[in-house]
Amino acid sequence: MLDKAKTLTHGAYDAAAASALKILVIHTRWNVEIVSALRDGVLATLTNQYAIPRSNIDVVEVPGAFELPFATKALLKQGKYDAVIPIGVLIKGATVHFEYISESATHALMNVGLESGTPVIFGILTCLTEEQALQRAGIGSGAEKGHNHGIDWAAAAVEMALLNQGKARKH
Amino acid sequence: MLDKAKTLTHGAYDAAAASALKILVIHTRWNVEIVSALRDGVLATLTNQYAIPRSNIDVVEVPGAFELPFATKALLKQGKYDAVIPIGVLIKGATVHFEYISESATHALMNVGLESGTPVIFGILTCLTEEQALQRAGIGSGAEKGHNHGIDWAAAAVEMALLNQGKARKH
Amino acid sequence: MLDKAKTLTHGAYDAAAASALKILVIHTRWNVEIVSALRDGVLATLTNQYAIPRSNIDVVEVPGAFELPFATKALLKQGKYDAVIPIGVLIKGATVHFEYISESATHALMNVGLESGTPVIFGILTCLTEEQALQRAGIGSGAEKGHNHGIDWAAAAVEMALLNQGKARKH
Amino acid sequence: MLDKAKTLTHGAYDAAAASALKILVIHTRWNVEIVSALRDGVLATLTNQYAIPRSNIDVVEVPGAFELPFATKALLKQGKYDAVIPIGVLIKGATVHFEYISESATHALMNVGLESGTPVIFGILTCLTEEQALQRAGIGSGAEKGHNHGIDWAAAAVEMALLNQGKARKH
Amino acid sequence: MLDKAKTLTHGAYDAAAASALKILVIHTRWNVEIVSALRDGVLATLTNQYAIPRSNIDVVEVPGAFELPFATKALLKQGKYDAVIPIGVLIKGATVHFEYISESATHALMNVGLESGTPVIFGILTCLTEEQALQRAGIGSGAEKGHNHGIDWAAAAVEMALLNQGKARKH
Repeated sequence: MLDKAKTLTHGAYDAAAASALKILVIHTRWNVEIVSALRDGVLATLTNQYAIPRSNIDVVEVPGAFELPFATKALLKQGKYDAVIPIGVLIKGATVHFEYISESATHALMNVGLESGTPVIFGILTCLTEEQALQRAGIGSGAEKGHNHGIDWAAAAVEMALLNQGKARKH
Repeated sequence: MLDKAKTLTHGAYDAAAASALKILVIHTRWNVEIVSALRDGVLATLTNQYAIPRSNIDVVEVPGAFELPFATKALLKQGKYDAVIPIGVLIKGATVHFEYISESATHALMNVGLESGTPVIFGILTCLTEEQALQRAGIGSGAEKGHNHGIDWAAAAVEMALLNQGKARKH
Repeated sequence: MLDKAKTLTHGAYDAAAASALKILVIHTRWNVEIVSALRDGVLATLTNQYAIPRSNIDVVEVPGAFELPFATKALLKQGKYDAVIPIGVLIKGATVHFEYISESATHALMNVGLESGTPVIFGILTCLTEEQALQRAGIGSGAEKGHNHGIDWAAAAVEMALLNQGKARKH
Repeated sequence: MLDKAKTLTHGAYDAAAASALKILVIHTRWNVEIVSALRDGVLATLTNQYAIPRSNIDVVEVPGAFELPFATKALLKQGKYDAVIPIGVLIKGATVHFEYISESATHALMNVGLESGTPVIFGILTCLTEEQALQRAGIGSGAEKGHNHGIDWAAAAVEMALLNQGKARKH
Repeated sequence: MLDKAKTLTHGAYDAAAASALKILVIHTRWNVEIVSALRDGVLATLTNQYAIPRSNIDVVEVPGAFELPFATKALLKQGKYDAVIPIGVLIKGATVHFEYISESATHALMNVGLESGTPVIFGILTCLTEEQALQRAGIGSGAEKGHNHGIDWAAAAVEMALLNQGKARKH
């Protein structure tokens, strides 16, 4: 599914504007090994690829994915961030809890972004197995190590924040 | 699914602020044995773990899960609570009533939280069997006794209320 | 699924306030035998169990379940009712009409209640067979006669109207 | 599924008020044979059954079902219509385009009706086969000719428009 | 599924008004070969079929389909465009990411159109296989080359923009 070379090559962009962005990362604590890898992928990309100082990035924890939209909206009220990357990992279980949380959190993150006017990236993995989640965090087993989606989410946050500042290139 | 050690260890927090929180618990009457266990798990955690006086906690009943969002919104208008924990137990039946109630209640609780500015925890079990619900209330049979999710909901309510007061730790 | 003894035993309540409530019942005309039984269950419960005068209750018809939310919102504008009980019966057919009407009507009734500030009860049966609907209207065949859900809806309307007036008991 | 005798017998109504109604019909162009039959069923019913002059009825085309809610809202801004009947035919295809269009159009038509305060009828057939759609337009093959749902939609539009004018009979 | 002769023959229209329209095209970068074909189909139709100068059309890129609604809303704030054509290609993968992105993006594009008052076309392919997507971009293999849906989206954008300017023909 993932095309590693893709999202990072979003063409020329204003590197100075990118490095001045203020980013909020909110992550859950469920499936901590996977979430941590995703968060680290986000942070490494923001700081290395886009030269955003670590001090421009706030990292906040919430219990689970249902809390991500509320935390995003509440913390955006401070008027401080150019983009938010909510990170969570949902894995199908025996009940249908997974389905209702996935659906409501996805809709709500979309709506919080639209209503706040600040880009909110979709950093939730909705997986049927733990192995799927591990692979999408770049920590799958053996040859199926996978690609860390946090890298893409960081790139998307930068691109959308610049677009939101009127810096999108128009062809 | 549940990682008992997890939600309770949300790191250092402002214990004095936590113990001063005012919490609203709203629960349904369907599947009363299960709902009661969940409610008791919530109350024990709020009072024992976080030292919130019982007098800071209001407990209100509604008929079923469809009523939880309305009651949450109506009672939040009093401006008195720092977080709400709506508790309900939905179990798949012969019709698709379960699916429509689960979906609409989940979305509505999310939206009431977002619009009110007060954290609303997702305390509804959406289970395919009664045994699944019993286990998630810590009263399953034998070795499958399970973990009382009320404990997690209480911890989530405290954490989100503090976050909403600007007390989230930023890394 | 139904626990007959449950919803009617919502504990002590303000009987005088209950009997003064003004209730709007809106029902569809599809599956008229079933809808009529549900409506009669609602009316009998409101007048007998809660001593609400029949003159305090308005009954209005609409074509189908998709019309219930609009009629509820339109008639609530008169500022006259303390609760609404929309009644409809949806039965799975050969197309997926059932699914889209069920889902959109459920969401919309929830939202009309939340936005109007008046409790709107979920009085729609979403059944896979006609027999399921007959049983949930208390008119199933033989020993499977079933429980008339209209009884529960009436009780829920009274309970939620009183809660909305600030009369919910807090523990 | 359809009970032909039903929707047309919505009891006594204000015939003079009905014949003065202004109705907007919006239809898609996909599956044109079926859509045309439905539109004709709507028009014949409005003019013959309810004596609404053809000059009181506007008919507008849009490309597909996704465009129906936007057109409904845009044309309602003229403040000219008492009800809208959006007509479309969606048939399950090889992809899941059908599901996403059906769901979003249904929700959106519901919401446009609720927010505009003008009744919007659900005139979309969501069918798994073309034959199902033909039957619901009254043009199925042989004995399965079916009932033209446009007849019901026209009756529903009249009934809801009168209800919205405060002319619903209350029992 | 596609009836090539259909959408292009939306009857007589104001050609001068059409050629003066300002259109925003936003496309994702996932599945770039398919997206590019769709974008080119859109551009060729707008410029050749409707004589819209290329300088009246802006083309902007976003990472993925979840970003389309935000970008649409953000760029519409400039008050410059008469219609938006968001283009994306979603293909079912091993997880249920596809389902949640498809559903939330569809709803959100609908709502951004309704709330902005500017037509937003649904230019997302939601396919179960890559071959389905290739065919709907007119680049399927061999005899199954398919029809480029971008052609229809361009026509729909023109038609809806004119409708939104009060230029829809009423019958």
